[in-house]
Amino acid sequence: MISFSPLQIHRLKYQPQLPLLLQDLSVIAANFEKSICLSDSALQEQFPQTFQQPIITFRRGNKKEATPLKVGVVLSGGQAPGGHNVIAGLFDALKQIHPESILLGFLDGPLGILKNTSIELTKMVIDSYRNQGGFDMIGSGRTKIETPAQLEAAMLTVQTLALDGLVIIGGDDSNTNAAILAEYFKQVGVKTSVIGVPKTIDGDLKNEFIDISFGFDTASKIYAECIGNILKDALSAKKYYHFIKLMGRSASHLALECALLTHPNLVFISEEVAEKKQTLQEIVGQITTMICKRAEKNLHYGVILIPEGLIESISEIGALIQKLNELLFSHSEKIEGLLITEEKDNYIISQLTSNEAKTFLALPKEVRDQLLLERDSHGNVQVSKIETERLLIKLVEKELKRLKQEGIYKGTFSPQPQFCGYEGRSGLPSNFDCQYCYALGFVATLLVQSGVTGYMSCLKKLSEPIERWSPMGVPIYRMLQIEKRQGKQKSVIRKFLVDLQGPFFKQYASVRDQWQITDDYRSPGPIQFEGPKNLTEVKPLSLLL
Amino acid sequence: MISFSPLQIHRLKYQPQLPLLLQDLSVIAANFEKSICLSDSALQEQFPQTFQQPIITFRRGNKKEATPLKVGVVLSGGQAPGGHNVIAGLFDALKQIHPESILLGFLDGPLGILKNTSIELTKMVIDSYRNQGGFDMIGSGRTKIETPAQLEAAMLTVQTLALDGLVIIGGDDSNTNAAILAEYFKQVGVKTSVIGVPKTIDGDLKNEFIDISFGFDTASKIYAECIGNILKDALSAKKYYHFIKLMGRSASHLALECALLTHPNLVFISEEVAEKKQTLQEIVGQITTMICKRAEKNLHYGVILIPEGLIESISEIGALIQKLNELLFSHSEKIEGLLITEEKDNYIISQLTSNEAKTFLALPKEVRDQLLLERDSHGNVQVSKIETERLLIKLVEKELKRLKQEGIYKGTFSPQPQFCGYEGRSGLPSNFDCQYCYALGFVATLLVQSGVTGYMSCLKKLSEPIERWSPMGVPIYRMLQIEKRQGKQKSVIRKFLVDLQGPFFKQYASVRDQWQITDDYRSPGPIQFEGPKNLTEVKPLSLLL
Repeated sequence: MISFSPLQIHRLKYQPQLPLLLQDLSVIAANFEKSICLSDSALQEQFPQTFQQPIITFRRGNKKEATPLKVGVVLSGGQAPGGHNVIAGLFDALKQIHPESILLGFLDGPLGILKNTSIELTKMVIDSYRNQGGFDMIGSGRTKIETPAQLEAAMLTVQTLALDGLVIIGGDDSNTNAAILAEYFKQVGVKTSVIGVPKTIDGDLKNEFIDISFGFDTASKIYAECIGNILKDALSAKKYYHFIKLMGRSASHLALECALLTHPNLVFISEEVAEKKQTLQEIVGQITTMICKRAEKNLHYGVILIPEGLIESISEIGALIQKLNELLFSHSEKIEGLLITEEKDNYIISQLTSNEAKTFLALPKEVRDQLLLERDSHGNVQVSKIETERLLIKLVEKELKRLKQEGIYKGTFSPQPQFCGYEGRSGLPSNFDCQYCYALGFVATLLVQSGVTGYMSCLKKLSEPIERWSPMGVPIYRMLQIEKRQGKQKSVIRKFLVDLQGPFFKQYASVRDQWQITDDYRSPGPIQFEGPKNLTEVKPLSLLL
Repeated sequence: MISFSPLQIHRLKYQPQLPLLLQDLSVIAANFEKSICLSDSALQEQFPQTFQQPIITFRRGNKKEATPLKVGVVLSGGQAPGGHNVIAGLFDALKQIHPESILLGFLDGPLGILKNTSIELTKMVIDSYRNQGGFDMIGSGRTKIETPAQLEAAMLTVQTLALDGLVIIGGDDSNTNAAILAEYFKQVGVKTSVIGVPKTIDGDLKNEFIDISFGFDTASKIYAECIGNILKDALSAKKYYHFIKLMGRSASHLALECALLTHPNLVFISEEVAEKKQTLQEIVGQITTMICKRAEKNLHYGVILIPEGLIESISEIGALIQKLNELLFSHSEKIEGLLITEEKDNYIISQLTSNEAKTFLALPKEVRDQLLLERDSHGNVQVSKIETERLLIKLVEKELKRLKQEGIYKGTFSPQPQFCGYEGRSGLPSNFDCQYCYALGFVATLLVQSGVTGYMSCLKKLSEPIERWSPMGVPIYRMLQIEKRQGKQKSVIRKFLVDLQGPFFKQYASVRDQWQITDDYRSPGPIQFEGPKNLTEVKPLSLLL
């Protein structure tokens, strides 16, 4: 990056506030809390070295002598605003501990660890990325480190570089990887601490130890700005139905947060659709019922939010995708050998049950193609490539035509598809994300200094004022469970889904019927960095409830 | 609108600064400048009553007694940030002139004038829309007032309401309408002043009297925020080519402004494509050539800006669209009678020359459908419905496949389409648009008070500090020329297009080759309302050059 906008330059100088405990690292001491032995024997087998580690908290202790540390950091997976601040926090904390500490950045994600390609992150580098969006300081990637050869390559790298710590900034999969790598290092006697940092705009990396993942706050505010503007436009033009797809694959936290920030007419929450086992026909029916109700009041416009994971949560489509995931995995050679789309289609159909085939063939051709596209490296359908908003528009148009012929619907329907996606992943981080990430970098450094491994850098009490945020180290193992992926049993971090019994969903559920008919649109506007605190120091709603 | 976000509430209290001359309306006096007789006889014939009116400037005069005024205001056409502030300016100026002045708002655009549906805009109404985005205070619409029956209905309304003034906030077409209405009122002896206000996010309503139309600043900044974020994301993920379509039908000002704010890899300027008579094949070639050059440097990502009007400016497509415009107009009954798409297609093709038919058939089916969709009320193809970004992706994919087979291209191509559209029209207006619009409302009020008609409210010297902005009234007639539309000669306001010889385009032209290869990405970030002036009081670049 060569050019900076005035706002980027201004943000370079922003100094994030730190929790009280992190303000003087020379007097901080670690508490090793009483360890709890978990009962899952399958997990214990996989993590014999690290399964019984204690939670770590911090307190003020005596002034101590410190030695320089050498730490490597890697960004893994999709961008999330604040990643650069985790690295800045690491750097500042390392230098505070000892001026001769060194921070290396592995290039282009975990691949940089395997290939041992890194750069030293000097003050000059760090200072040009403070409080900036993107992951472009060192790049990111989706390579996993899990095969024996990969684990060995990683070991060689950290040994060659004589790293005290390896900090992996990533989502649930990457942090699971961190736990596996930590266990492996322990087994082979490598002393490098492996520390994870919870990143994902989706908000599904959340549990009793993680209040929220970083990036969610900024991304939800960027999407809410766009949705709020579109709501205003819909209300002014009075002629379009906007179908807005939002990022959020497994969980609909972004859709729910944005909904409560903006009050659109209809919002789908994938978790609810899955729980109610709703079919595609029912989803379409929900939309057309609302459109008919509004048409009776002479309202021929509206805004509908669609989480990108909705498609998978629809009963019959979810089952189909899972079947396709398995088929494409187990029959991959055969399928890749078929070059003509029709042959591929026919072969796939021959492997489906008649119900599955019916579902598959009822989808428009483009959507079928999207379902058969290349998987990501975790073997998942690339849900973001499925244009659910356009699929729904087609089906709604068809249904409205039918309802018009029957005399039930008398309106005009002008749909507009929209995708709130990539622009939310790399925006300038909000003050909250700047501060949270900076502190996460400090905590990660302290964990490396403590010599522990397989831990996640955490901060609890995020809903309280920053001074009181509570730094912690939590064994990643504590967040794991066994899941079936690509036909294999795998340990993964439990994804946090929208809790349909929780207060946040209930708040939404209590107003949504009203939103369908009475426009209660709200426009949050662009993220503000300066000005009154009620505009600049705003935490995610889902954190506060 | 029932709900307000904290930022919306904060903005309600923002007090726009006024140019010095407008700060005390009790001592302002109008100068009627020497009138210039223009030579276009066809125009003179259409505007016998108003063609010789002088430009009006303002100066400090003696304190004067004023009588209450009754004014109606209407929003016409697409939303542009700042519209509510024009109305707030009208209201405050009217009340300053005389507390008993009354402001009425016509509902849902010019249709509200024809149907005489209006509401009184009281302080309470105005105070809930100050500095807010959207046109939802009174709605907007695209009805034109031009037939004898419509002109008469408008006359009846302003007479019934005994309006001293009718303020039409709109783009080039709406302001042309304002001139026609003013001429008609003069001819029939109606004394209501008709005053236009220059609105359009496209930036093409600009001439020696209009420095810039309102809304352009905010819209370009909202789009630039999104583009800047996507650039950061492209640079971080290093795997996507983003094809971003931007609003801007006739002119590419938005694309050019955003380009200079963000520095993407490739930007099409419709005016240049038209001047060079570039074909679709050449456009695709420009893109694939860049992709191949970048692939050689192992860069498989990038960002391309596409103004929505590009499709029309491509030589053979533009000719085709014009032909279709004429065909659909002159054969409308026949074509509307054909219900089956194929029959419609075949009939259209039978009316085209063989070259036109070839061009038409070379387009993907979806694009052909989009070209035959309903026109807008001005008889134009609804260019925003043509998904040029997706058309280009398809054609680029095809061409890259060919280049790959020939061994010329060795990269991977993952395209992502994006449309920066509706969210830019109704965002919270920037401080610049808030101030500019508020002052435009004041000037419009002064013109009504002066008793003139067929004028545009203007402010010159916008690039200077606000105190020195120079209020003016300019006869709309002075901006008109004769153009052929739907086969008829019509008087219209000259559209301001990107000047390919001007300094602004030249600045871009001097760096664009560099941008193709060296990523010089710049992220302007979200619009800021508070903080240092270099972040909050930022004028459009195209105004400053």
